[in-house]
Amino acid sequence: MIFHTDIEVVLNVADMRLTGDAAQEPDLKQDESAAGALIEPHSIAIVGASERSRWSTAIVGNLECHGYTGELHLVNPRGGGIGGRRVAQSCAAVGTEIDLGIVLVPANAVVEVVTDLATAGARAAMILTSGFAEAGPQGQARQQQLTDSAAAAGIRLLGPNSLGFMNFVAQTVAWATPISAPSRQDGVALVSQSGATALFLSSLAYQQDIPLSYVVSTGNEADLGCGTFAALLAADPQVRAVAMFLESVRDPRQFVAAARSAAAYDKPLVVLKVGASEVSARSALAHTGALVGDDRVFDGICERYDVIRVRSLEELMTTADIAGRTGVLAPGGLCIVSNSGGVCEVAADTADTLGIDLPDIPGPTAAELRGLMPDYATPHNPLDLTGGIVPGDCERIVAALGARPEYAALLVPFYPVPLEPDPGDQRLAALHRHIAAALRVTPTPGFLVSYTGSVISGPGRALIEGIGLPYLACGMDRALAGLSSAFWWSQRRRRAVAEVPREVVPGSLPARPRSEREILDLFAQRGLPTVPHTLVTTAPEAIAVAAGYGGPAVLKIASPDIGHKTEIGGVALRVSGADAVTTAFHQVTAAGRAQPGARVDGVMVSPMREGGVELFVGCSQDPVWGPVLALGLGGIWVEVLSDIAIRPLPVGPGDVLDMLNSLRGTSLLAGQRGLPPADLDAVAAAVVGIGDVAVRLGPDLAALDVNPLWVRGDAVEILDGLAVWDTEPA
Amino acid sequence: MIFHTDIEVVLNVADMRLTGDAAQEPDLKQDESAAGALIEPHSIAIVGASERSRWSTAIVGNLECHGYTGELHLVNPRGGGIGGRRVAQSCAAVGTEIDLGIVLVPANAVVEVVTDLATAGARAAMILTSGFAEAGPQGQARQQQLTDSAAAAGIRLLGPNSLGFMNFVAQTVAWATPISAPSRQDGVALVSQSGATALFLSSLAYQQDIPLSYVVSTGNEADLGCGTFAALLAADPQVRAVAMFLESVRDPRQFVAAARSAAAYDKPLVVLKVGASEVSARSALAHTGALVGDDRVFDGICERYDVIRVRSLEELMTTADIAGRTGVLAPGGLCIVSNSGGVCEVAADTADTLGIDLPDIPGPTAAELRGLMPDYATPHNPLDLTGGIVPGDCERIVAALGARPEYAALLVPFYPVPLEPDPGDQRLAALHRHIAAALRVTPTPGFLVSYTGSVISGPGRALIEGIGLPYLACGMDRALAGLSSAFWWSQRRRRAVAEVPREVVPGSLPARPRSEREILDLFAQRGLPTVPHTLVTTAPEAIAVAAGYGGPAVLKIASPDIGHKTEIGGVALRVSGADAVTTAFHQVTAAGRAQPGARVDGVMVSPMREGGVELFVGCSQDPVWGPVLALGLGGIWVEVLSDIAIRPLPVGPGDVLDMLNSLRGTSLLAGQRGLPPADLDAVAAAVVGIGDVAVRLGPDLAALDVNPLWVRGDAVEILDGLAVWDTEPA
Repeated sequence: MIFHTDIEVVLNVADMRLTGDAAQEPDLKQDESAAGALIEPHSIAIVGASERSRWSTAIVGNLECHGYTGELHLVNPRGGGIGGRRVAQSCAAVGTEIDLGIVLVPANAVVEVVTDLATAGARAAMILTSGFAEAGPQGQARQQQLTDSAAAAGIRLLGPNSLGFMNFVAQTVAWATPISAPSRQDGVALVSQSGATALFLSSLAYQQDIPLSYVVSTGNEADLGCGTFAALLAADPQVRAVAMFLESVRDPRQFVAAARSAAAYDKPLVVLKVGASEVSARSALAHTGALVGDDRVFDGICERYDVIRVRSLEELMTTADIAGRTGVLAPGGLCIVSNSGGVCEVAADTADTLGIDLPDIPGPTAAELRGLMPDYATPHNPLDLTGGIVPGDCERIVAALGARPEYAALLVPFYPVPLEPDPGDQRLAALHRHIAAALRVTPTPGFLVSYTGSVISGPGRALIEGIGLPYLACGMDRALAGLSSAFWWSQRRRRAVAEVPREVVPGSLPARPRSEREILDLFAQRGLPTVPHTLVTTAPEAIAVAAGYGGPAVLKIASPDIGHKTEIGGVALRVSGADAVTTAFHQVTAAGRAQPGARVDGVMVSPMREGGVELFVGCSQDPVWGPVLALGLGGIWVEVLSDIAIRPLPVGPGDVLDMLNSLRGTSLLAGQRGLPPADLDAVAAAVVGIGDVAVRLGPDLAALDVNPLWVRGDAVEILDGLAVWDTEPA
Repeated sequence: MIFHTDIEVVLNVADMRLTGDAAQEPDLKQDESAAGALIEPHSIAIVGASERSRWSTAIVGNLECHGYTGELHLVNPRGGGIGGRRVAQSCAAVGTEIDLGIVLVPANAVVEVVTDLATAGARAAMILTSGFAEAGPQGQARQQQLTDSAAAAGIRLLGPNSLGFMNFVAQTVAWATPISAPSRQDGVALVSQSGATALFLSSLAYQQDIPLSYVVSTGNEADLGCGTFAALLAADPQVRAVAMFLESVRDPRQFVAAARSAAAYDKPLVVLKVGASEVSARSALAHTGALVGDDRVFDGICERYDVIRVRSLEELMTTADIAGRTGVLAPGGLCIVSNSGGVCEVAADTADTLGIDLPDIPGPTAAELRGLMPDYATPHNPLDLTGGIVPGDCERIVAALGARPEYAALLVPFYPVPLEPDPGDQRLAALHRHIAAALRVTPTPGFLVSYTGSVISGPGRALIEGIGLPYLACGMDRALAGLSSAFWWSQRRRRAVAEVPREVVPGSLPARPRSEREILDLFAQRGLPTVPHTLVTTAPEAIAVAAGYGGPAVLKIASPDIGHKTEIGGVALRVSGADAVTTAFHQVTAAGRAQPGARVDGVMVSPMREGGVELFVGCSQDPVWGPVLALGLGGIWVEVLSDIAIRPLPVGPGDVLDMLNSLRGTSLLAGQRGLPPADLDAVAAAVVGIGDVAVRLGPDLAALDVNPLWVRGDAVEILDGLAVWDTEPA
């Protein structure tokens, strides 16, 4: 079993509330300052500059053509000159202060260059060279050496294996391939571990007219990582949204810090993380290990921290753009207005699939609209204006709908802005102009969107800017996907203020329960609802205890060494009457005795619980994220459907209600199939308590499963418990 | 309850095998001939032509600029001339034969024009005018009058409310809005009920460089419908795939005919049908009615007839294009080759989600590849060539992978063909040229695809054609979606030859079973595995029968008037021993007697079956498609998860195996949770038999439910039956 360090466990507590433990961690704010200084240098030295190097040429070209106003120095031991610039033979020989060294030298020379930079007074280096941690054990050793040297020299690093950064706000484009996209501001900040992918995403953004304020390629993240840049940039006034492309989460604290920074500034953080299909190399963890794939843990992290997770390159950019432009939406649904009935129907289906609410047009507005639309049109949402709509009436209709409190956003799937506008098409121009006029003034965010995915050309860009049209070229399908994320995120943000951080101290319970009975007793001691249970060692005792509980009983073998009792015949269910109890007692005792080497404490007798909903609660240790809790309905729901929700521990009651709500079988708790509606607050309290126990038991606890947590109306009881310990205490 | 006519029931049999009944139906082939003649006219009259009409101007312009070589006449009662052409005052006054009348006159004049056209010898009319069935009861009456008049006059109709057709193969573009896209052939045929949507889809196709051979807008389908055109065009050698946009299926026979035509020519039929989110107005049908939404029936129809169903406008065109270009793929998986590791990882995740198999590169080929790739690259699928790949080696690598039998298709997410090619970028040109060279010659279909969705410009189009590059501009995400459909469809088509049509005659069973016992007896008589059951009227009889079966028994009230026995306490389960049987007998009898007006035949005794998988089999009548069968696992699988598969009746064993395989709970039948693996052939035989009984019982049967069909290993038994009859016999 891969196991987390104590520090990682602490983090998941620390991120709920900064405790003393967190203060011992490296200062995240200091990292952010360093990252901020790194991407806004006033003096740059390109080390390894040469006329033959495509990288060197591209960086110089980008800095020049995007308006970098600071100093630029070229360094190469060969000296000489490139394109009229003098080439210094070392960083020290530059003779003036260097803020940032851009390092293009071969891998085996990088450490030396970093030391040289430090000598020249530099505080930051961006390493484009590859051949480090991504290149096997030798590269990993080289990267460690780089990290150590840089730390010793007081140099902060971007990379290695980075393609650079584009700081469009400070007109500093230090990127290793030619970038022709114009400088834009007030847009999306893109941070990506993969430089090539960042480049492709930048091209996509340009084609879609999505403004990018910043692009940072973090490469191997020997020092500063995506999370640090994302946390920094979320706070930047020129950033509306942060888009992040991740191959792995190297530092969960950084990631959480980024999510919290985005939340603090009410800006969406949108993440595309690959690896969902990886055959995880984790060792199994009782039940839970098999169910909780890394990727589902990451889903739970995103859920917990209001991070929008997407699955395609396009969606990463369009969703960041859309949610960044809408900001936190007011409560309400979406109003869709088009000029085609077929498109309206497709939109309705797609919205339904995505769970977007389309409230119908309220009566008085509908009456108003009737006077503005052709006779044969009917005012419903989605609204088909029909092909015969008068342009001026489009404006009035969109404005009227935008004023309705039922709608938090408007989407107008319509004729796209043409790639080559036809000056003779006055009707199209009038339609776009009038819709733009309405969307500009309405208090509700709204967009005109091309029916299907397209791009924006130069002339189209001019047209949009000229009439002030909020336009999306991504097509209705992706726009609805983006809006559904914006709705989800807005709903989360609106209620976030009500949450109260919880503090649970890891390892604060010195117990190390092993048998089911010890676990149940511990739960009971901590005030959690636990099924009554009594340990007996003789059949007459069992009869008396069962009679005392009344109704059918359950008899289970009690042993700290037998985990899965049912499989060995160590459990007897629905036992009624003295004879049956006697038979059951001897049966489970015999089953226990048949297990070689198992200590048998006796038999545990409990009342039988049936006719409710059974929940599975599994706490385990994720190698990246530390302790996590998986919650699902038991039986087939977990075993066949893997219908579980996961969150980092500790969880709060709100988390648990969210988790329950996300389960496919959630309707069973609402009282389906003849059951009384479950007391969800009581369920949440029990789950929170189980999670707290897992945290308090400390990092040696590999797994703590409750299966089932039995729920029937307001009766909630822990019927079973299994603890797996990772290591023996020292 | 909405109820089907006899004809509709017959159809579902007819489509399995043309029986005598089918011969009485209007000849579908004759419709196809008429449709073919309609879109390839040698002489056209535009009736209602005027200089002020945008439609008239557009149609004349389109016909002229796309190279229509037949005769073109203009007709308007006002006479005169338009743009140098004489305008005849009536169709008869044209004085020469007219193949097709294009009718633009107001709705109230359309019938008269159709009659006039008939007088002039025309056999077909295309009605662009709206204000018919889509416009309320008055319009519906007007459409009926049009249909009747046209039928009487021997005129076949396209429309009303059509925007026309584009026959690029015969250079005949009779479309009511200006079409500038160049004439293309050997591509996708698009048929759409919505004219505007067809227009938007045509624009999308042009931007994506998807060749369109035909576009037909069928409008209200007063006569010829989408299915007829699709069946016709699937047979056309200039068509690789048929894309269909449907708002509703007006004639299921036409739709099935289209699917069969496409299958016969091994061309994909791809359908976007809206209405999935509509609150269906259907009346409830016992159980099944509530579960079987219209849209899920349509899913089942598509499954049955190998029709690819898609959910977005983009996917409709890209999937038709991709599957049309691949044709029926050989067995095997997909090989993905890119020059970016990040893109490879996204591709792997997306392929995993879509269920696309990515077989790893076999050893000898991997060894061969190692010599062609940079040292730091590793040969896996998806294959990251890395940014440093040599263009010529790209060609060798793609060619080597394309020669492997493990791969049925290749996808190369790569630098897109630029909108404005840079003649100075020789590396990009070489990469594209070399990859094109490999993809052109490899026996395996393959495409270079832009990383993200883009468009193709004029210069890009020239580049692609110049180097013969099989290129997709839709982006990797949509390309993978299209390929996953192509894989599904190919797998279906490859095995289709093995299927044997079945004939089941509707209404051939004169029985009208009502009580559970009658239904079980009928099943047993037809050789279906049915749980043993005996009707008793006294407690001692019950004791004797139960003892005879051995083990616990089930007692149920037997009455033709009590449908849901459990709810009223009319069922006793797990009854063991004489005393318990006596108690249960009196209990269920009392429950039966408590039902006012219910005839009680006695008590039915059966052996108790437990510890297996319970299937739900529900036969019902769909108002469009006639008898259908829904199959799912019982209990929560149906009630909470709606996890069912639906097919038109009769079903064959292959259908049932497909259905079982599509269920989320299918693994339970494979022997999960300690159960023996189910005998799937026995299950299929039982389900086929239940469906046959439903068909044979005839169209008055509203519903026939078996819940459960009990399965444990090779034991398969019908435990229960419920029939609902729609009408009393005359």
